[in-house]
Amino acid sequence: MSKAVVLLSGGMDSATCLAIARAAGLDCFALSFDYGQRAVAELAAAAAVADAIGVTTHRVLHMELGALGGSALTDTGIRVPEAAVEGIPVTYVPARNTIFLSFALGWAEVLDADAIFLGVNAIDYSGYPDCRPEYIAAFQRVADLATRRSVEGRPIRIETPLISLTKGEIIRRGLDLGIDFALTVSCYQADTDGLACGLCDACRLRRTGFAEAGCPDPTRYRRA
Amino acid sequence: MSKAVVLLSGGMDSATCLAIARAAGLDCFALSFDYGQRAVAELAAAAAVADAIGVTTHRVLHMELGALGGSALTDTGIRVPEAAVEGIPVTYVPARNTIFLSFALGWAEVLDADAIFLGVNAIDYSGYPDCRPEYIAAFQRVADLATRRSVEGRPIRIETPLISLTKGEIIRRGLDLGIDFALTVSCYQADTDGLACGLCDACRLRRTGFAEAGCPDPTRYRRA
Repeated sequence: MSKAVVLLSGGMDSATCLAIARAAGLDCFALSFDYGQRAVAELAAAAAVADAIGVTTHRVLHMELGALGGSALTDTGIRVPEAAVEGIPVTYVPARNTIFLSFALGWAEVLDADAIFLGVNAIDYSGYPDCRPEYIAAFQRVADLATRRSVEGRPIRIETPLISLTKGEIIRRGLDLGIDFALTVSCYQADTDGLACGLCDACRLRRTGFAEAGCPDPTRYRRA
Repeated sequence: MSKAVVLLSGGMDSATCLAIARAAGLDCFALSFDYGQRAVAELAAAAAVADAIGVTTHRVLHMELGALGGSALTDTGIRVPEAAVEGIPVTYVPARNTIFLSFALGWAEVLDADAIFLGVNAIDYSGYPDCRPEYIAAFQRVADLATRRSVEGRPIRIETPLISLTKGEIIRRGLDLGIDFALTVSCYQADTDGLACGLCDACRLRRTGFAEAGCPDPTRYRRA
């Protein structure tokens, strides 16, 4: 059975991405990061999602990304915006997807996995530069050159099955695959119990997505 | 003064790379990793080199790269070869340069640094795929797309001033810049005091380099 490393944040996109990889018959190795994010409930959500969908291993790597600073997601001194903003928001974490993909690439090589699944989305997202299709293509080129497998002519594929879906389409796809979205946490400032603020960009995109999908929103909010 | 992040392993190549960045008048921020490498003396060497050459900050990030396995440099259960080997050796660490460059990219963005210096070399090296010029070009493309700075039209440059130098040329360049190579540790299995085995690929390349440069080798070896 072909193996895949699936980057799993605990949010709805990566959960759907994992379910797609499983539905494709892949042996899935889920990878999460404890990087100093303020929403620690993400990691509990990732574990619950990995358990519900079924993975061979779920690994959580610790790293000092938050210590570098520069983002509202890792620095509680920077306020998470509670209204839509122009341009790249302060919730952008410098080089986060590059760092995540790099570790996934290393683990994929050690496991001899054929693919890395990443739930990035370029339609309903927060405007992060490292979610764009051209960025993914550039990282694929790195993967095509960086590894022992690539020298052997078996480069590791970067798969982004959600990249051109709307949030509503992602939710419908996830529901078709049996995901319980109540397990997932999207909020940038979820509390330790996973209760969502309902106001940040991630909450706004998620709420709009359930409305678009015409489905009840199972998210537990702190405020109505 | 323009800032640069310099990846500093504690070996002779990264020391020379730092000296080149300093000589170019850059404000240098050195970055090392405690990633589970067996040669922990590397980190003490990196600190000594940073101190001797002069940096604004020397940061050591801890991360669980070694925990992923797959390399003799992080797994003491895999023997470090003590003779030249064909192909990519077992000392190759999966995705290591990609992970290092990714963290450097994140830190460079937080610092608003213009460049990242990496002492890779494609002439006298161990055949690692992530030291080749085409790999560096691919990572530059990632840097050109991944960051907030790149969206603003100010992408971070990846500088590899040693990539086409021989080991002897690197040593002569470093000596011209005043480096004390006795501070550096290249050995893949240096002991905690920094004494080198004299037998591994890194020791062999270093020894040959000093011979080529026609300079006394200041390396402290465990065996003659």
